[in-house]
This record gives sequence, C-alpha cells and structure tokens, in this order.
Amino acid sequence: MQVSGFNFIAGQRSALGDTLVYSVDAHTGERLPGAFHQATLAEVDTAVAAASAAFPLYRNLPAVRRAEFLEAIADELDGLGEDFIALTCQETALPSARIQGERGRTSGQMRLFAQVLRRGDFYGARIDQALPARTPMPRPDLRQYRIGVGPVAVFGASNFPLAFSTAGGDTAAALAAGCPVVFKAHSGHMATAERVAEALIRAAERTGMPAGVFNMIFGAGVGEALVKHPGIQAVGFTGSLKGGRALCDMAAARPQPIPVFAEMSSINPVLVLPQALASRGAQMAKELTASVVQGCGQFCTNPGLVLGIRSPAFSAFIEQLTGHMAEQTPQTMLNPGTLNSYGKGLQALLAHPGIKHLSGLAQAGNQAQPQLFEADVSLLLEQDELLQEEVFGPCTVVVQVADEAELRRAVAALRGQLTATLLADNDDLTTFGQLFSALEVKVGRVLLNGYPTGVEVCDAMVHGGPYPATSDARGTSVGTLAIDRFLRPVCYQNVPDALLPDALKNANPLGLQRLVDGKSSTAALN
Amino acid sequence: MQVSGFNFIAGQRSALGDTLVYSVDAHTGERLPGAFHQATLAEVDTAVAAASAAFPLYRNLPAVRRAEFLEAIADELDGLGEDFIALTCQETALPSARIQGERGRTSGQMRLFAQVLRRGDFYGARIDQALPARTPMPRPDLRQYRIGVGPVAVFGASNFPLAFSTAGGDTAAALAAGCPVVFKAHSGHMATAERVAEALIRAAERTGMPAGVFNMIFGAGVGEALVKHPGIQAVGFTGSLKGGRALCDMAAARPQPIPVFAEMSSINPVLVLPQALASRGAQMAKELTASVVQGCGQFCTNPGLVLGIRSPAFSAFIEQLTGHMAEQTPQTMLNPGTLNSYGKGLQALLAHPGIKHLSGLAQAGNQAQPQLFEADVSLLLEQDELLQEEVFGPCTVVVQVADEAELRRAVAALRGQLTATLLADNDDLTTFGQLFSALEVKVGRVLLNGYPTGVEVCDAMVHGGPYPATSDARGTSVGTLAIDRFLRPVCYQNVPDALLPDALKNANPLGLQRLVDGKSSTAALN
Repeated sequence: MQVSGFNFIAGQRSALGDTLVYSVDAHTGERLPGAFHQATLAEVDTAVAAASAAFPLYRNLPAVRRAEFLEAIADELDGLGEDFIALTCQETALPSARIQGERGRTSGQMRLFAQVLRRGDFYGARIDQALPARTPMPRPDLRQYRIGVGPVAVFGASNFPLAFSTAGGDTAAALAAGCPVVFKAHSGHMATAERVAEALIRAAERTGMPAGVFNMIFGAGVGEALVKHPGIQAVGFTGSLKGGRALCDMAAARPQPIPVFAEMSSINPVLVLPQALASRGAQMAKELTASVVQGCGQFCTNPGLVLGIRSPAFSAFIEQLTGHMAEQTPQTMLNPGTLNSYGKGLQALLAHPGIKHLSGLAQAGNQAQPQLFEADVSLLLEQDELLQEEVFGPCTVVVQVADEAELRRAVAALRGQLTATLLADNDDLTTFGQLFSALEVKVGRVLLNGYPTGVEVCDAMVHGGPYPATSDARGTSVGTLAIDRFLRPVCYQNVPDALLPDALKNANPLGLQRLVDGKSSTAALN
Repeated sequence: MQVSGFNFIAGQRSALGDTLVYSVDAHTGERLPGAFHQATLAEVDTAVAAASAAFPLYRNLPAVRRAEFLEAIADELDGLGEDFIALTCQETALPSARIQGERGRTSGQMRLFAQVLRRGDFYGARIDQALPARTPMPRPDLRQYRIGVGPVAVFGASNFPLAFSTAGGDTAAALAAGCPVVFKAHSGHMATAERVAEALIRAAERTGMPAGVFNMIFGAGVGEALVKHPGIQAVGFTGSLKGGRALCDMAAARPQPIPVFAEMSSINPVLVLPQALASRGAQMAKELTASVVQGCGQFCTNPGLVLGIRSPAFSAFIEQLTGHMAEQTPQTMLNPGTLNSYGKGLQALLAHPGIKHLSGLAQAGNQAQPQLFEADVSLLLEQDELLQEEVFGPCTVVVQVADEAELRRAVAALRGQLTATLLADNDDLTTFGQLFSALEVKVGRVLLNGYPTGVEVCDAMVHGGPYPATSDARGTSVGTLAIDRFLRPVCYQNVPDALLPDALKNANPLGLQRLVDGKSSTAALN
C-alpha cells in the first residue's frame, strides 16, 4: 500500500511542487502513510499540454481501438486486489462489499462504453447525397458525423471513489468520445486514485494509446487552473452545488467559454399515494428507511423529501418511518468535511420554526446519526431555500399535503431533480396518472414503485435533470448517453469518398445505421 | 403595408408601453410609416408567462400535431404576397429575388422539421427491458426519450429577415422540439417581423395550438429582461460576437443558468492549393470574388480569409482577385449600423502596418465598397485579434504562407469557424489530405471545391463550430440537428405501458427506430 504521490502527466510521474497533501483514514481521521505532491501551475499546464498533444492522435484512432483501451482498463480494474479494496475502504469508510460492487460497476461501465464504440451510433452519421439536377440550385453532397470536443477536465466525486472518480463515468464517457482526460483527484481518496490511475496507464500502454491520453493531478486549488486552461474544452464534475456552480462560473467567464457538466444537488422527492399506502404502507416505510440510510445517505439520489396526502394512513406511515429511522445505527461518513456539512444541514433544519424533528439522536462524535424531520407544506409552496437544498447524509423530510391539488402545487414548486418517485398502486395511477407529466419536466428520471438510490448503468439511464440537479439538463452522467456531452457534429461537403472518415464512406465499412437522405439505413451507397 | 406595431402575446396584441421604435427604409434611411410599441417589462413577463402556460399543453401534443402546425406556418409563409416581399426589401435593401428565395427556404425549413417530427428520431428512444432474474440485482425496466427544455427565447438576425428571424431556423427548431417561443424582433425589419408573426399566429389558430405557443416583442433593451426571465429555459441567437457573448454572460449569471446557442463570428478561411491554382486559378478568382460580394458580404459564412502558398501562380491569383474585386459595385447594407461597423472594420485593417490594401474605393456615402487586403502571415501565426475577427461586409483578406508547414501552422492558429474550404485538385489532396483532420477540429463544416456562402438546409448540415463561431460547438443552427439544442433526455423506470409516452410504449405505435437492449430495432415488444 505504498503511495508515490506523484502526479500523472503524459504517461510519466511528476512531482515538481513542494506543497504536500495527505490522505486520511476516514474512520479515525488519522493521516495515512505517504504524501501527495500538489500539482504546480506548471504541472497543470504540462498535463493539459499532454492531453492536447494526445488529442489529434487519440481522436483519429479507429473507435474499435478506443474500445480495446476501455476494455483493457476494465480488465485492469477487475485485477485490483483485496489490498486495493481495503485501501479504498480505509480512505472512505465505505464497506468492502460496496467497494467490490463499485469496482465491478466501474469496469462494467468501461465495457459498456466499449460496446457503444463498437456499435457506432455515437457517430450520429447522416448523409444527404448530392442532387446535381435539383433546380434552381443543385444540392452538394453533405455528410455529418460527430467528433470529440477536445481535452476534458474531470473532477472526481467523494461518494463514488471508483464509479465517479479516476476511471469513473465521466472519464469513461470522455475517453470513449475520443477526448483525452486531465483528472483532478478528489482529496478524499487520493491513494485509491493513484492505484486506479496506475491501472489506467497500464491499460493505455498495453493498448498503445498516445501518452497524455490520461493525466491526473493532486492538490487543493489546482482545479481552478485546470478549468481556466485554454486547452480544456469541457468539464465533468460530480459534487456540491456550491462547487459545481463555481466551476460553471469560471468556465463561462473564460475568453472561450466551455460547457461544464456538473451533477450537483437533488432532494429526490418520493410521493406516497393513498392506495399504495393502504395496501403496503408498513412495507414502504421499511424500504424507504433503507433507501435513506443506504451508504450513510451519501448518494446523489438519496430520497430527501417524502410527500403524502394528510390522512390517518399517512400519519401511521410517518409513525412507522419515525420508528424505523430511530432504529438505524450511526455510520461513519466519507470524511470530516462531509460530516461537518451534514451537521450544519441538520442544525438549519432544527432551527427552522416550520420544521419538526421526528427522530434521530443528537450528532456527536465522528459518525452521522440518521434523522427524520417533518416540514410544513408552506415551506415547499413558498420555495423556502432550506427545503430545496440537499442535506447530504442519512436524513429525510416528510411533508403532508392537504389533497391532490396541493400535491400538484408542491410538485410545481420543486426545483430540478435527478429523480422523482411515485409509490403507487394501480388505483392511484388512475387518479394520479397526470403526475407523470408534471414530474417529467422537473427531473431526469421518474420511478414507479422503486427507490431512487440504485442507478443502473445502461443505454436508457438518465442521471441528470434541470438545475440545480445538474448544470445542463441536456446531459446525463450515468449511462451511455453520457458520451454525447463530449461530442460535436462536423459536416463534410463534397469531399471524395477516400478522404471521408470511415463513418461516412459510401461502403459503410463500419456497418452503421445512418440517416441517408432522410431515411435510416445500414446500406452501402454507390 | 399598414403596421399595428403591437407586441404579440398569448395570441393577442398588446401595446402597454409609451416608448415607440420605428423601422426605416434601408436605402434612404427614412422612417417608414407606423410605429412599434417597445414591450414593457410587464409585457416581457406576460409573454414568458404565456409561453410557460402553453408549454405543458404544447409539449404533450402528439408530434404529428406539431408537424401540422409547422406545415401550416409554411403554407402561410408561402402565401405572403408581393407586397410582403417589397416591404422586406424596403426594410433590408436586399434584392427581391433573394427575399423570394429566402421565403421558400424558410417555409421549406418548417416543412423539413415537420418531417423530423413525423420521422420521430428526435425522440432518441431507448429501452432497456427489465432483467428480473439478473444477479446479484435484477434490472428494472428503463426507458428514455427526449422532451423539450421549456420556453425558448429567440433573437432574430439582421441578415436573414426570414430564414433566421421570426419564423426562422431557431424558431422552427424550438417549436419542433415542443418549446413555445418568445421572439425578440430585430430592429432592422420590424414590419417584416409583424407580417411573419401574423402568419405564424394564423397557422397556430388554424391548427388549434395553445395561445402563447409563439409570442413576439419589439424594442431595444427588452432582450436582457427576456434572457434573465426565470421562465426562459434556452436562448437562440444569430448576430455579432459582442451581442452573443453578452447574452451568454447574462444567461450564465442567472440563478438558474441556461444554455445559449449563439451563432456569432467566423472568417471562414479558404485554402487555395497549388494544383487547383495551376489548373483553374483564373476561374477560382472569379468565383471567390462572387462569394465575397454576394449579398453585400452579409453572410455568416462569407469567406474573410484566403490562404495560399507563395508562388508565381498565387501572385497571379491575387492579381486576378484584385482586378475582380475592383470591378465590383458598391451595395447598400442592411442598415446604417451595419455600414458603420463595416467602415470601422475597414479602418482598423487600413491602419495596421502588417496589412496592405489591394483594392476597393474609399468608403463614402451610404453604400459598402468591396475591399481586398493582404496581411502578413505573422499576424495569423501570432493570433493578432484583427485578423481573427469577422469584418461583416464585402471584404476579404489574402495571406501568403511560405510552404505546407506554414500553412498547417496558420490553420492551427485559427480560432473556431463555421466553415473552412479547400480549393484543391486530386493531386493536391494526395499532398494536403491531412489538412482535413487539422481543419475538422476548427470548424463545423469542411468544404471541398465549393464556396461557403451557400448553406443547405438538410439533415447533414452543420452551421456551427467552436467558439467564437458559436457559443456551443455541440449545436447547429441550420439543418434538422438544430432541434437537439432544445431537447433533453428523461428516463422512465418501471412505469406500466399505458402510462408511458407513445414513443416508449411496447407496441411502438409511432413506428420508431429505437435502441432496445443495445440493438437498433423498429419492432414492437411483448
């Protein structure tokens, strides 16, 4: 478990700076052995230069070569042993079963993007053939496909040390798109990041990728220099609203503004409907509790708001929820900063006159106590800031509404969310079916009779949604559509077949489904 | 040719304000009859409220209904008579043949988006069916499609009073996406805008669209209130770098930042290669001149930079170009502001010690004189601001490079462009084929042996490119892909078939090509 603590630049290791940063044991707060060299501004510059130099080589590789690279990364990740799992657990206080699962999810994600590259739909190939006889003007031959935007800066998330970090979803999407990456390691799991970066570099070397296809820098404050660097063409981020918004503001103020895809703050409302409540209220109270405290509530999709129509059954549900929540044991959070934020969030809820504390022991020591609150619906309807902002941790807030009309008003008052969930039986859906349309405009994903904390990595997933859930509702950071964030269209006009990219050649050598003269086709053209 | 000058709000006309603005005859500068009521802040608010109220109704209409609306707009546009053409010519000084052509282009654009709606690929439908037996965790049923982002603010362009204005490309794309529009009429052709808005409202009424699906406001300074309005969810703009960047900055600074798709500044380099020069230099000099002065140079894709390798043949080409440009007659520009900007741009070029004036009479009176300059290559290589910025008008700048290597360095020094053009013969392509890859990262469209000033409206067109050509290289403002700017993905998890949107239903009632479990399919599911 030795760390070198050097930055990863152009396939080499670099430690030009004197500022050292340290990883800590998340359980004890004690400094772990080894030190990490904060990247100097010169190293940030070199890392971006390396990514920029790699871009023309890497983006022009056949997609199948990039697929092989991603698959090699997946193999390397799967090969990280028990000592790696132990290290990540030590840095994050997450249980080993979770980290093992997350390793599989992370390698699976790489393999899924490899499939996207082999499938080729990411090219978005479109061909409008020449119409030389058209009057009054002939139509030239026009062909469109998509290319990577350029070097991408990625910021790892604290709560997914593997799946949303060094070789996580944003990195996978960017690399799949043909964009070299400069990754800013999260301070919460730098030793883990180093091990993953080493795995990634081994895969890059093994598959003959250009040096600079992946770079990683350590340190505090280096993110600003990275986002402002003219070589960076897009940013991926998962974290707090404050942090994400700061990056968005920096990126927008650049001489050349660039897009930032930040996944930030969501309270993930769960709507408990009457028939479901009647038929399986007790079960739902149990399941919902499990979702709230899962992973110490440290999920972007943690259900932070539970809405139901005032009734004896909903009162009983709240009582059951209160009982279950009170039985939950405290857990160690990812790091002291997260625990501190959680404590502040709870204090704000406790101090609010419109909010009642239902269950949970007072915060003390270095673990997070699960907490349940009830808020007056007026706070939602009047868009009180407090109720709209995520409290990251094992905590949720119940709100009782008067009737269906007030439920709809409460939904309308919500800000953008990653998810919204209906717990509903068939009879509920007859009465409340219109809620889908109302929720759809607020969220990236609508769930029926599930809990939002599981995020499947697949083609159809949307882990996104309107602000402040993300900075750009048109993207997703989970699932294969995530590649779209780092692609842009280019059109070729009257370029001879031999000089066209393979995706646009007449013979359709990649076997793509293409939009040809307005019709979907896999055929070769004459 | 009577104008009411009232704003268009929620299908009604509104004139609450006292501030009047006037349209002028572009040839004479004289005020045209009638006055336009600048929208008050309250009217801006009402217009956005109308669009917001229309959104849930409009976006939930079947796509085929929106297609019928767009086709009705097209019919109404085609029905605008000769008096309308005369009016637009009067306001813009553009010739009537051009306006007639542009009317057809604008109605054709509406019909093309109607086809997109009928085709349904804009939904981007993706289905991952449940895997209940999967271990360790079953997979839920996940289905993704795309919905409109919400009300869109559109700013019309001066240089396309029809095709990039009231019922132009951005409006068509937004309406197709299911997004109601609040359109800010360009001050340069307000009477034209009124006539087009009336046509659009007739079409909306005829096809039973919700009031508020399209709104239009007049006036100076109202754009800021529009972009900052919390109801607006995206912005489309065509115009100057300064104006576009100002809107981007406003949108990024909102409490909820929103995307701005601004098409701004491009110098559209044309690379003249040796063999083409040898075989048809004289012809190219003639054609290039025609492209530079077409429409008085008032095209976003006007070739503003001509690059060639120093040689006797290229000297001869420059001489021919100089001769042709000197023969071109002055033309009236769209408005005094445009002429004034052109004059300032020319003065800056004339004042620069590294730039030589080759041909063109001194600016005088109210018409634009075509101008030709030659700049030292060092200006390009050192990224002199002057050479990178578009001079909007009938003007171009020739640059001689020493050799192929310097040509590549000059290309690398370019900022983002809408287009780049190679004038090349087969032998050139053997030698210079690598240029395509170098140009591709700089532009939205690469042309071979054409001129950039014709922009075909079709599926494969990209009228976009890296900053400052546009504010977001991932979009296009011409062609059917333009709809993507106003769509965002939503995922449904475990929602029963009856409650799914048609695009995602098992039976595939819309007959869509969908990505089902990783494979493209038009089949119905069980």
